[in-house]
Amino acid sequence: MSMRQLRAGIVGGGRGALIGAVHRIAAELDGEARIVAGAMSADPETARASAAAWQLDRCYDCYAAMAEGEAALEDGIDFVIVATPNHLHLPVAKAFLEAGIHVVCDKPLAASLDEAQAMRELVAASGRLFALTHTYSGYPMVREAKEFVASGRLGELRKVQVEYNQDWLMAPLERQGNKQAEWRMDPARAGISCCVGDIGTHAKHLVEFVSGRKLLSVCAELTSFVAGRQLDDDASMLLRLEGGARGTLVCSQIACGEENGLNIRLYGSKAGLEWHQVAPNTLHVKPAGESWRRFRAGSSYLGDAATRATRTPAGHSEGYLEAFANIYRDFMADLRRIEAGEAALRDYPGIEDGIRGMRFVQAAVESSRKGTVWVDL
Amino acid sequence: MSMRQLRAGIVGGGRGALIGAVHRIAAELDGEARIVAGAMSADPETARASAAAWQLDRCYDCYAAMAEGEAALEDGIDFVIVATPNHLHLPVAKAFLEAGIHVVCDKPLAASLDEAQAMRELVAASGRLFALTHTYSGYPMVREAKEFVASGRLGELRKVQVEYNQDWLMAPLERQGNKQAEWRMDPARAGISCCVGDIGTHAKHLVEFVSGRKLLSVCAELTSFVAGRQLDDDASMLLRLEGGARGTLVCSQIACGEENGLNIRLYGSKAGLEWHQVAPNTLHVKPAGESWRRFRAGSSYLGDAATRATRTPAGHSEGYLEAFANIYRDFMADLRRIEAGEAALRDYPGIEDGIRGMRFVQAAVESSRKGTVWVDL
Amino acid sequence: MSMRQLRAGIVGGGRGALIGAVHRIAAELDGEARIVAGAMSADPETARASAAAWQLDRCYDCYAAMAEGEAALEDGIDFVIVATPNHLHLPVAKAFLEAGIHVVCDKPLAASLDEAQAMRELVAASGRLFALTHTYSGYPMVREAKEFVASGRLGELRKVQVEYNQDWLMAPLERQGNKQAEWRMDPARAGISCCVGDIGTHAKHLVEFVSGRKLLSVCAELTSFVAGRQLDDDASMLLRLEGGARGTLVCSQIACGEENGLNIRLYGSKAGLEWHQVAPNTLHVKPAGESWRRFRAGSSYLGDAATRATRTPAGHSEGYLEAFANIYRDFMADLRRIEAGEAALRDYPGIEDGIRGMRFVQAAVESSRKGTVWVDL
Amino acid sequence: MSMRQLRAGIVGGGRGALIGAVHRIAAELDGEARIVAGAMSADPETARASAAAWQLDRCYDCYAAMAEGEAALEDGIDFVIVATPNHLHLPVAKAFLEAGIHVVCDKPLAASLDEAQAMRELVAASGRLFALTHTYSGYPMVREAKEFVASGRLGELRKVQVEYNQDWLMAPLERQGNKQAEWRMDPARAGISCCVGDIGTHAKHLVEFVSGRKLLSVCAELTSFVAGRQLDDDASMLLRLEGGARGTLVCSQIACGEENGLNIRLYGSKAGLEWHQVAPNTLHVKPAGESWRRFRAGSSYLGDAATRATRTPAGHSEGYLEAFANIYRDFMADLRRIEAGEAALRDYPGIEDGIRGMRFVQAAVESSRKGTVWVDL
Repeated sequence: MSMRQLRAGIVGGGRGALIGAVHRIAAELDGEARIVAGAMSADPETARASAAAWQLDRCYDCYAAMAEGEAALEDGIDFVIVATPNHLHLPVAKAFLEAGIHVVCDKPLAASLDEAQAMRELVAASGRLFALTHTYSGYPMVREAKEFVASGRLGELRKVQVEYNQDWLMAPLERQGNKQAEWRMDPARAGISCCVGDIGTHAKHLVEFVSGRKLLSVCAELTSFVAGRQLDDDASMLLRLEGGARGTLVCSQIACGEENGLNIRLYGSKAGLEWHQVAPNTLHVKPAGESWRRFRAGSSYLGDAATRATRTPAGHSEGYLEAFANIYRDFMADLRRIEAGEAALRDYPGIEDGIRGMRFVQAAVESSRKGTVWVDL
Repeated sequence: MSMRQLRAGIVGGGRGALIGAVHRIAAELDGEARIVAGAMSADPETARASAAAWQLDRCYDCYAAMAEGEAALEDGIDFVIVATPNHLHLPVAKAFLEAGIHVVCDKPLAASLDEAQAMRELVAASGRLFALTHTYSGYPMVREAKEFVASGRLGELRKVQVEYNQDWLMAPLERQGNKQAEWRMDPARAGISCCVGDIGTHAKHLVEFVSGRKLLSVCAELTSFVAGRQLDDDASMLLRLEGGARGTLVCSQIACGEENGLNIRLYGSKAGLEWHQVAPNTLHVKPAGESWRRFRAGSSYLGDAATRATRTPAGHSEGYLEAFANIYRDFMADLRRIEAGEAALRDYPGIEDGIRGMRFVQAAVESSRKGTVWVDL
Repeated sequence: MSMRQLRAGIVGGGRGALIGAVHRIAAELDGEARIVAGAMSADPETARASAAAWQLDRCYDCYAAMAEGEAALEDGIDFVIVATPNHLHLPVAKAFLEAGIHVVCDKPLAASLDEAQAMRELVAASGRLFALTHTYSGYPMVREAKEFVASGRLGELRKVQVEYNQDWLMAPLERQGNKQAEWRMDPARAGISCCVGDIGTHAKHLVEFVSGRKLLSVCAELTSFVAGRQLDDDASMLLRLEGGARGTLVCSQIACGEENGLNIRLYGSKAGLEWHQVAPNTLHVKPAGESWRRFRAGSSYLGDAATRATRTPAGHSEGYLEAFANIYRDFMADLRRIEAGEAALRDYPGIEDGIRGMRFVQAAVESSRKGTVWVDL
Repeated sequence: MSMRQLRAGIVGGGRGALIGAVHRIAAELDGEARIVAGAMSADPETARASAAAWQLDRCYDCYAAMAEGEAALEDGIDFVIVATPNHLHLPVAKAFLEAGIHVVCDKPLAASLDEAQAMRELVAASGRLFALTHTYSGYPMVREAKEFVASGRLGELRKVQVEYNQDWLMAPLERQGNKQAEWRMDPARAGISCCVGDIGTHAKHLVEFVSGRKLLSVCAELTSFVAGRQLDDDASMLLRLEGGARGTLVCSQIACGEENGLNIRLYGSKAGLEWHQVAPNTLHVKPAGESWRRFRAGSSYLGDAATRATRTPAGHSEGYLEAFANIYRDFMADLRRIEAGEAALRDYPGIEDGIRGMRFVQAAVESSRKGTVWVDL
């Protein structure tokens, strides 16, 4: 595979948006890519200041100009990062896909299932690569968990408990000038859900990623605990998965004291598994009738997937940025494969995960509106 | 209050039944009572051997004879402990209540809601004290949690997550000669539920005890993961509580690797709380916008309720037996109050908790049978 | 073995002394013994009030009268519990041993090594049983650790880290009316050390108990951090053990925030072990090149020693009182063996542990006084 | 300050040396620098392959040529990273300092105290910046701990317990072809100590960094547990610090099961602190008489130092690479200050820390050789 440094661009993620800096560090962490161009804000001044702060080679005022401009350059960007609010995912991705540029897109895929399906057609028509940043599947021990289940060591999956608890929206920040809260609580920009779309989709993706089982139906109650909200800030739901497994999914943005509490437990006929995002380098393994094992990232006894996703020896914690970089690494390896005329592996979250995520959001909202009934995805 | 040592009797709990030894240690721990009589098994030989092992003064072949015999003695038992399978709770309690003897009864209250209501009438008619052994409310830090919520420090309760996960029934022990599994999986002896009745009721009681809010409705799915079972070995449900709080309750007896995983988290508008039964001397307190506090049993900064329930200084772990003994201690204090002509405080789980527990079991089963719909308690 | 309930007496442990209640609960927990007589305080009023609170059959004003009185009774006590300050251990034990009564004695064994050696002669001459309450060796997982090492699974022992940190003496309580602090900081009653004698001896016993290796020499620094103290409130020392193992022992009563932090780690050529008294039902096992194992009290995979020391299934925490009761249980089993004409097993801390404990205190003090040099035990 | 991207070079750290990749990621993480030149191995083929893998602009066969070559270029490197075995630190740093190039050097500073002092003179004479990579002081919560102590909230420091336990040298890897083990166990390349020099210096630096107190003397025992070793693989020592504080320092490379267990506890007259490198985003704070606080990286209640050292919100773990990057960030900020004609702050480990580290190694070795006596630094 070619070793040249790839060129990336970014739309959104300007000053004040945490996720912009996260994308930059993650994309560049292994030295394989550099962000060289951006349309980092709808506000031209912010766009220019953000680009200058990052020393970008090329700064654009709008994404359309950027797609056109980069496509025209001989050394234009190889891929674009879409780090905008949800409602812009489709138009931005469209512009770049149609310009022949690969896309890395924030989740959820779009503001509605219709948009998501339109996105799928665009991706298919373009022949370009598409990655969706379900970051948490980049953690080494999440990959170990997936491999553990796939190898049969868990036995038949029976029960899943997944939860994603935060508290940053326990006050009405969207009415206090917080931009991140504003768009997430605005149906015009976020779509039909805040909490389920923003973090519930991560939890749902994690369940399917680790278990290798698709979610079939949900029975949900969505709530807005903070007065005056049009969208949910909390949800609880029952799950039915392929193969007869049952489970619960809880997500909340008003869970006082929780920072970013993404946790998963799986129970099979031979073993149980448990992983916590706040202590991501440990996977708890619970074989039936035996003592718990504490699997640790970087250890020699782990499988290939976890080992490939680790940069330092056991005991040197890796975290969120490295997990994010793992998604980029797999995506960029695919990009080099395509460039070399090889087949893409698509071993990172992609368009189909995005579609399923949007179906999940829609099913959860529908279930809750109908009085908490089972709705199939 | 009188300081004489109280005399207790026990029905059930003979050799092979763990709970018998637990009751004895708990009842006698503080030196306030001694078990002196028993009808410890329906099998006369087991009954005699069990009584001999405990050096009981009086051994009976059946509970009816025991109730009659003890009532006739001048120094007969002050109270009886009912440690039988569920279907015997009512007839045994009836015999003793009608003989004027106070009752401590295992949970769930009975094998059906009808029986539970009959029990309530019997208790009311007898004027005797009645305690239900929801042991977990005896832990010091559970009492601290209750006091924390009651004092307003949690703010308005929004969300609850409670779970009780075990794995001891992940194999079909009821067909392998395990007596404890046999009756629990037999509708004739256990009633309409195994898992929800056996441990779900503990979880539900814990939620109401700590939050001070009654559970209004449940939306549940009960499952029998092990083939051939008539009763549930697993359940997941959504909860609605008084005052608008929402939540989830998960209980399982097939959660591979879990020993006795009773955990509760509460989220309010001012703080969160978290407690785990396997590490019972710690209560995690999460005030909004501040660092987590780690409240520890035996510490000087705790409230009265926790302090009264602790026997050793901070750092000397107390456990399940001491929690159980706390239920007995409160019950016996009431018994001495009555003897002294004072009013009973009834500050331990009692007949109303039992009734609500049975309503909860019935509602959960009904919800699941109807396809997971909301059912009021 | 005889099943009659044994009769115990207690000297010291009256109102205000936590350890009295602990002894009573522990001695009586399994229903095998009852405390029936006591000389619970040098102050006659306290002695009477304490005896009344416990409903003792016989209350004495002084231990000498008690030893004489009990020896003269046909149903006098089988054994006495010595729960006094250190300087009284020898005279009290002497009185009872010479009266033919077995002894359970608090640690450290005495106020000096000379006294300790006198005690050893008295015990030998009396032919009576003698137990020293190194409580922590009563924990199931400490016994599992001992069995793990003895079985060879640890390999050759290389390194030990043991520590016992508390903070209750970080203020000068001995000058603020705290009786427990007063005698511990008074050389006339405590001997040549406070911290090393009071808790360092526990740590040292734990090392030898688990490792099966004797401590050969120490290189210590003792400190009094709180101004005006005659005795140490803190110590750190290097250790050399039989077989070439090395280690550290830290004990402190001024370690701000620590409750009762007795922790031990052992490192061998095949595995490591780690145990914490505040979470006593877990033993961390670290086999070379493999994932850590989490051994849990009550689990089926544990050895006999741990299993015999457990009363409840895994997940039902047992704590300090149950560990203490295990020491009593083993002692009482020996007492019944002797009564039945069998040989005593002496599988609990005894007079030799006490002697070694006093040698340890003396060596640590001497090492520190000489400027931190190696001193053999 | 200038925003141009800085140019770095590296000596050592070629293929097979973990630390090379760590330096690259850390130096480039924030986009402020790029490694453009290297003499990455004494073996020319490895040097070329390593440089190619990193797409370096300039590859050198030896560090002397590199120093000369880079100094001659208009766009030569701004600073060099010295990632060689200890005995090369001095000659390599010398070459670059004399060529007017700033230096970032691995710890320990050199192979002997004499070399270290020579290094100090070179640094002083050159007027160049010098950073020593005591990575662990780059963690946000270590900086919070330092600020906590400095603010007086700990009170008077009394006791310190620090330890750094690993197990990677529990087998004789140095005789099994492991390059990293080979040079560390070779006195000609590592100097007079392996374990104390390699990781004990980190532990010692951490104590001084957090406490703000200098280490005055040590009383140490160094051991080689694995047969045939010329240098120590384990050490235990007692510490005396400025202001009367006492403590222990344990370091080991044969502590079976430990990955990279750097832990520190401090006890003051007002509070205690505890931090563990394997869970680096949490700092345990233990105020006297109150409940423990759990300070978390990224939280709004933290001080400036921690906040500046954090890239993501609370709950998104940052790890070892980010801590390392923080050292680089502070160093590069100084470099830009100098370039802008401002005074350097030198708020990162530097030459004086290196000198003190070497004194510590020498004192520990001397203490052990003399039979474990107090030796001043």
